[in-house]
Formats: sequence, C-alpha cells, structure tokens
Amino acid sequence: MAAPIARPAGKVGRPGYDLDSLLAVAVTVFNQRGYDGTSMEHLAAKLGISKSSIYHHVPGKSELLRLAVDRALDALFAATEQPDTTTGPAIDRLENLVRRSIHVLVAELPYVTLLLRIRGNTTVERRALTRRREFDHIVGELVQAASDEGSISADADPDLTSRLIFGTVNSLIEWYRPSRGLGAEDLADAVVKMIFDGLRVS
Amino acid sequence: MAAPIARPAGKVGRPGYDLDSLLAVAVTVFNQRGYDGTSMEHLAAKLGISKSSIYHHVPGKSELLRLAVDRALDALFAATEQPDTTTGPAIDRLENLVRRSIHVLVAELPYVTLLLRIRGNTTVERRALTRRREFDHIVGELVQAASDEGSISADADPDLTSRLIFGTVNSLIEWYRPSRGLGAEDLADAVVKMIFDGLRVS
Repeated sequence: MAAPIARPAGKVGRPGYDLDSLLAVAVTVFNQRGYDGTSMEHLAAKLGISKSSIYHHVPGKSELLRLAVDRALDALFAATEQPDTTTGPAIDRLENLVRRSIHVLVAELPYVTLLLRIRGNTTVERRALTRRREFDHIVGELVQAASDEGSISADADPDLTSRLIFGTVNSLIEWYRPSRGLGAEDLADAVVKMIFDGLRVS
Repeated sequence: MAAPIARPAGKVGRPGYDLDSLLAVAVTVFNQRGYDGTSMEHLAAKLGISKSSIYHHVPGKSELLRLAVDRALDALFAATEQPDTTTGPAIDRLENLVRRSIHVLVAELPYVTLLLRIRGNTTVERRALTRRREFDHIVGELVQAASDEGSISADADPDLTSRLIFGTVNSLIEWYRPSRGLGAEDLADAVVKMIFDGLRVS
C-alpha cells in the first residue's frame, strides 16, 4: 500500500513499517490504552520509531483511528451487499448477515473491537458511529422484513430484536480469541443456531 | 447506612452524602472516565465536597470500587440461590437464572456496567474477576446439567453455550436504558425467548 518507512538510525535490524503494519500496532495500543489515553509518543515508543517516522505516513493519530474503524466498517458493509444477504427470504438474508458479520469479527478482531468501543468524542468517532447506525438500520430492516414475511414472530419488536441479535454477535469480542482453536465457521454455527433456533430441544 | 457527612463551609444548600449516595456518584464517574482515569480530585469535584469529606467515609477510591462491584456481584450470586434457580429441571433453573440476572442488570445497571468493564489491574479488580468466574462456573454447570438431561442439544459445547448466553445478557449494558420505557420483565421475556426458543417461527 505504502513504501516501508526508513529505519531510524541506530536501530539496524528493527523492521520498517508500511502503513498496514503500522496501523496494526496502533490499533493494539488503542485497544490497550484507549484511544483518548494514547499519545503519538506512546505509539512511537511501541513501534520503536520516531514520531516523525509516523508522520511520514499519517498526519496524526485521528487518521490512524479513521483507517482502523473504516477497515472494520467497510468489511461489515461489504457483508450487507453479497448475493446471499440481498436476495431470498429475509430470514435467510438476516441469518447470512449474522454469519458473515461473525466472519468479519474473527478476521478483523482488533479493528472491530476498536470500532465497538468508540464513544463519539471526536469527529472521526462520530462519523464511525453514524456508519454503525446505518449498519444497524440495515439489520433492523431485515428483521422487519422477516417479521412481515412471517418467519419471525410478530410479537418480537424489530428494534429490540435487532439489538439482541447484534448484542450477541458484538459480545464475542469480549472473550473470543482465534488462537484458542475455535474457528469462525464453528463459532458462527453456534451463534446462528442459538439466535434462530434456540437452545431448547423441543 | 452511615451518617450524612457535613456540608462543606460556604456550600449551604448543597445536599450532604451518605455512603450509598456517594457511591452512586462515584460509580457514574468511574463509568464515564474509567476507574484508572478517575482521581479522588475528580470525585470531589463531581460531588462538590472536599476530598477529606470523602475520606470520612472510605479510605480511598479502591474501597468505592470494591463496594460498587460487590453490590453487583452480591445481587448476581443471590440470583443463583433462589428456589427457582436451585430446584427443578436444569433447563428451567438456567432460564430462571438468565431472567433474574437481567432483573439485576436493570436494577443495578451502573454497578453491573462497572463490573463488566473491569480489566484486572488492581487487587480489588482481580478479586471481582475471580467472583465473576465463580458465577460463570455456576452457569456452566447449569448448561452442562441441561445438556445431560437432554433439554439442550448435546452438540452444543457447554462452555461456548455459557459464553453465548451471558454474552447476550451482558451486551444489554451497551444500549439498555430504563428511562426509555422497556421494563425489566419485557426485556427478560424477549431475551429468554430468543436464547431458548430462537427467533425463527418453525
């Protein structure tokens, strides 16, 4: 994406960073310290490079935040535009969107984690929250359509149902770690089964 | 519980605090700023009293944290010790525990929110995390018992199922606000219905 940045003098052997690898480290630090609690000094120290080397790639930490949350949001919006989330019965489109969102969460875990912890203190954060609401709106419309077609109980309030579905999906960031051996597909199977069919053997 | 503390000189008309009302304000500040980001100065400023007035009640902010998270934990453990969570089929005990946990979450929302955001940086936090794991263990045993009695599919891994159930319950703190008119019982009904029976009309 971008050329590797020069290694700082006296740090021979330390790898250079391109924008993607710099972003990956920045996101880790943001998730550990919180975005507000992270300074360019913290990032430079963690990266083992100078602040000016970071400024070679981005004008400041807000641009790193923007790139990070957009990576998560772009992947989630891409999930809403697939054949299996845009055609067919609404209940199937909804299930497929849940399944694809879990795959995004697993593939982009630090980026989705950062996105879900945003509180809206800056322009970049507020813009990300606006995009999150657009995504929630798409989910809400699918739930409403599934209710209209009779595949979800009409008793279930669509807004509440949307919140419960994505509350369950989003809660995965609190404990899921790919290294522990549970794959994205098995995770998605378990979540989809609970949400759509329930745990109880009837 | 404790006698109201003296109003600071020159602040006639500002209410005094007893320990419970002082704790309620402290928990709000902890949830807004993060526990690590909150100093005794922040608390004194928000309360409109001097630091020494706070020290009249507690030796420091870690004691406020301990009281706050124990309030949430005590309520959750009390839920595990009721007749309807200790007798009868495991699937019913589990459903009742989920229902009672949602009532605790609604009744003690700021305290449960603080509990769920704890990361384990201090002794008080690590002790709270240990108690949370004990609660999770009780849930895990109920899921296993429900699986053993055949009321939950044997395909469902009990550990994963426990995490999904309480992931869904815990995610409520992200959006649920009692002021918006959805009561605890209706919320519990919707969550229990999705988790145990699923959204799909079969």
